Amino acid sequence: MPGAPLPSPVIILVEPQLPENIGMAARAMANFGLRELRLVAPREGWPNETARSPAVGATAILDGARAFASTAEAIGDLSFVLATTARARGKMKRVLSPEAAFADLAARAAAGQRTGILFGRERTGLENDDISLADAILTYPVDPAFASLNLAGAVLLAAYEWARVSPRRPAAGGPEPGPEPAPRAAVLALFDSMEGELDRAGYYPAEKRPVMTRNMRDMFHRMAMTAQDVSTWHGAIRALSSLRPRQKS
Amino acid sequence: MPGAPLPSPVIILVEPQLPENIGMAARAMANFGLRELRLVAPREGWPNETARSPAVGATAILDGARAFASTAEAIGDLSFVLATTARARGKMKRVLSPEAAFADLAARAAAGQRTGILFGRERTGLENDDISLADAILTYPVDPAFASLNLAGAVLLAAYEWARVSPRRPAAGGPEPGPEPAPRAAVLALFDSMEGELDRAGYYPAEKRPVMTRNMRDMFHRMAMTAQDVSTWHGAIRALSSLRPRQKS
Repeated sequence: MPGAPLPSPVIILVEPQLPENIGMAARAMANFGLRELRLVAPREGWPNETARSPAVGATAILDGARAFASTAEAIGDLSFVLATTARARGKMKRVLSPEAAFADLAARAAAGQRTGILFGRERTGLENDDISLADAILTYPVDPAFASLNLAGAVLLAAYEWARVSPRRPAAGGPEPGPEPAPRAAVLALFDSMEGELDRAGYYPAEKRPVMTRNMRDMFHRMAMTAQDVSTWHGAIRALSSLRPRQKS
Repeated sequence: MPGAPLPSPVIILVEPQLPENIGMAARAMANFGLRELRLVAPREGWPNETARSPAVGATAILDGARAFASTAEAIGDLSFVLATTARARGKMKRVLSPEAAFADLAARAAAGQRTGILFGRERTGLENDDISLADAILTYPVDPAFASLNLAGAVLLAAYEWARVSPRRPAAGGPEPGPEPAPRAAVLALFDSMEGELDRAGYYPAEKRPVMTRNMRDMFHRMAMTAQDVSTWHGAIRALSSLRPRQKS
């Protein structure tokens, strides 16, 4: 007999423009057994009755969908987050095929970790600032000449891949989940601390701050930090900063 | 160099009700490299301008789509046909998983055979008479409690599976080789700098220094730093520990 179902990935729609697409995404989730939907600053507000009809009965998902003001808040309780993009932009972050990504998500679920997948705006996709909050990029093997997936379609493929990996726990020899990652909120607090100290130290040339910040966040993501690692970094940043003479201001 | 692309499966929509769904199906086909669309008795007639906007640029597929009066006529030139249904309805017919179905379609394509996949009406799916014309049934592993896929979504999954098995796989999706790693000497110099500054700050409890140093080095290794990354860290450490942009040693 199978045990309880694995905790499934949370689907996070970042600034969805049309409530119809939220409804269709909920339907796609329900088709393949995904349950938890989160919305970041949906343009037409939330809850929204217009989403209901396109959801065709996936109303439990809509009723349970929470809206957040920012991507950071929406992923605070998750320990591993993927960002979906049509193209791998820059190369500072791991890019995973669907097979690799969902094998990883299943292994993490089996270890009790909570995960999530970010999907961007209908027209423009995820912005770099959203992507910088994710651990890795998930890219579908779309035709480069026609790469624009509709939002519900992108969610459908994620749900479909989840259904493919979720019924069976990862076989022996599969990817090991590794130590438990730090809660995302702790990682974000570390970013705040690091970037705040670097601001105070006058580290960033103003026009380069966004790209330098993203690069450094990407490096931290690649470390796959545990909670202990995060606190090691907090301590190291405090220690280094204590060397700095007090700045007059 | 790869040879000519395999002949890809023809997508056949049987009595589609809404032209919008025909357009969305064309878009889904284009996303994953399917090219040929056929329609059996579309309710609103064909060609139909209403299909154009939801196709979002997949106009070549719409322009090439032919309408037929019956399913039999639409598949007359094909040598192998699958019927998609949500449930296998007590048929004396093989039921294939997506993996098995698309492995079969790819093998037939490699042998020069032309194949097709039937998709039913939005509301009711394929009728038994349509299914009886097919060689086998293709069923997606939907949640039995929520089995109704939208038409474009069902086509999207077929196109996605085709892209997975088609040897001329679009190049965009795979993981890219990472950027060139920093020379090891640069990484070791960074360790010296970081550890030296932390020593100066009194960060390490004496007996724990070896294990803390190893942990932090491990984290740096997990970043898989480029030469640029190493110099970013040098700059950040200098900035955190000193008001001056460069420290004399």
